[in-house]
Amino acid sequence: MKVLILGAGAIGSFIGAKLSSVSDVVLFSRNRAHIQKIQKEGLIIEELTGEKKRFHLKSIFDLKDLEHLPDLIIVLVKSYDTEEAVSSVLSIKKENTLFLTLQNGIGNVEKIAKFIDPNMILAGTTAMGSALIEPGYIKHGGSGPTYFGKITGPPDELTKEIASMFNKAGLETYVVEDPNLYIWKKLIINTGINAITAIAQIKNGWIYKNRYAKEIAQKAVEEAVSVANKMGIEFKEDMVETMLNVAKATSENISSMYQDILKGKRTEIDAINGAIVKFAKDLGLHTPINQTLTNLVKIIEEKVVGK
Amino acid sequence: MKVLILGAGAIGSFIGAKLSSVSDVVLFSRNRAHIQKIQKEGLIIEELTGEKKRFHLKSIFDLKDLEHLPDLIIVLVKSYDTEEAVSSVLSIKKENTLFLTLQNGIGNVEKIAKFIDPNMILAGTTAMGSALIEPGYIKHGGSGPTYFGKITGPPDELTKEIASMFNKAGLETYVVEDPNLYIWKKLIINTGINAITAIAQIKNGWIYKNRYAKEIAQKAVEEAVSVANKMGIEFKEDMVETMLNVAKATSENISSMYQDILKGKRTEIDAINGAIVKFAKDLGLHTPINQTLTNLVKIIEEKVVGK
Repeated sequence: MKVLILGAGAIGSFIGAKLSSVSDVVLFSRNRAHIQKIQKEGLIIEELTGEKKRFHLKSIFDLKDLEHLPDLIIVLVKSYDTEEAVSSVLSIKKENTLFLTLQNGIGNVEKIAKFIDPNMILAGTTAMGSALIEPGYIKHGGSGPTYFGKITGPPDELTKEIASMFNKAGLETYVVEDPNLYIWKKLIINTGINAITAIAQIKNGWIYKNRYAKEIAQKAVEEAVSVANKMGIEFKEDMVETMLNVAKATSENISSMYQDILKGKRTEIDAINGAIVKFAKDLGLHTPINQTLTNLVKIIEEKVVGK
Repeated sequence: MKVLILGAGAIGSFIGAKLSSVSDVVLFSRNRAHIQKIQKEGLIIEELTGEKKRFHLKSIFDLKDLEHLPDLIIVLVKSYDTEEAVSSVLSIKKENTLFLTLQNGIGNVEKIAKFIDPNMILAGTTAMGSALIEPGYIKHGGSGPTYFGKITGPPDELTKEIASMFNKAGLETYVVEDPNLYIWKKLIINTGINAITAIAQIKNGWIYKNRYAKEIAQKAVEEAVSVANKMGIEFKEDMVETMLNVAKATSENISSMYQDILKGKRTEIDAINGAIVKFAKDLGLHTPINQTLTNLVKIIEEKVVGK
């Protein structure tokens, strides 16, 4: 299967490298320094054990350099780049090319569906953690399962085949009936962890170890769960507990939002806490904790990125 | 009049230097580097014009070095140090020594009154801005009036005499009937400005220029005003507007809380937004914006200070 990674950042490069053992993968990113480094010297992945592995992967920063049209495009650009990225690959997709989004935040499926037949969209989440330390150098930050499924119906054979490819590549993956539920679960976990760690510039572990961080993370999650429930999304588990367990399991990780701030980049706040605030407004609910967190991230973003 | 500045930090040193032209002032601080520098070379104040003036002031870090018992002790230690500082000067006060607190935050009068006859306490606020750039070197950051009065009744002659001394020293000062109202007004202004500027590490001007900062500052103030109203404190002015005007007038200032974070010091959050949250809890009100701001400052404090 020919796979194009659309957005070969920290997590895209990691998943691409893993999949390259079982399929024909091309990394695509507009981060020219990262791609050129991989073209010259390969991609280095520092594993959880500290061991460094080098992957020689086809990598491009210009779609003109793509040799074969992809069967599967895995969308891993930042949420706010989704529309631009998907529209940029319309010319190199085949009629039966599948799109799989494993992006952070909510609303990515809807953005992709502006351009792509929903029957061709798979969606889900991954709990893989990864950081782009420098061009060509990725650090694996924590392992967790990947879940995806079709957005228009029950999983088909092709979806199962792709999941099987992920599993063969060493990525623990499950096909799910309701990917939207998994996307919401991850959204809610991120609602508790990402903004607070980005604002206070702390590692994930603080969220369950520090009582002040824990208290607002918990309240942010409670607000998000109320919004989800009002939208008809029900969770069988206690999402506060789930969020705290994720914070614990990823204690030493720097959340993607904190990574963005450190790099002076725009964050995905609009698709995480900001999305909760927006849904809440439409529903007539109040989410002051998420509002405060969203605004603080926006201020810090403007400070580090400029307007 | 013999004046002891109890807590010669940024604002204490500034007020002490000004008062030294019209009274016998001693600066007292436990910041030994700052005091020793003043002892050796005098205190340098950089005025708003950029002009630098040197003041030769009696300065001590040990009360044993005090030559005369003070008539007036101006309390300008951090709110959380009040009890310890006041109890440390009990041995060097006369029966008729007055205490004047111009500290930030709420609750300082109550802390002083644990040791001192309330009839001997004057309280109020100052809008003077100042920063301790390095030991012995203060930068004047903005001018504004000082208000104080007796906490047990209408202003007496001695209070007016002290105010007159402030005015002669070039510090615009007014004697007020209800110092508590002025303390609350300043508290509410600080509730809007201090935590947000400390968390996002921004100058005061962002509070009125940046729409995200303005929005939460406004909501934090609205919560604080609700709490004050429920406690029977009424403001004739629109406190949101007042707070935004202060942010505008002090655009280039680094708030005291942001200064504390930059210096890796504990902040006065418990006496500002934290006090609003505490009063609200006692009154059965919700102040989620102030709660979030308080917790975020607490997290950052623990990060920079340690527990």
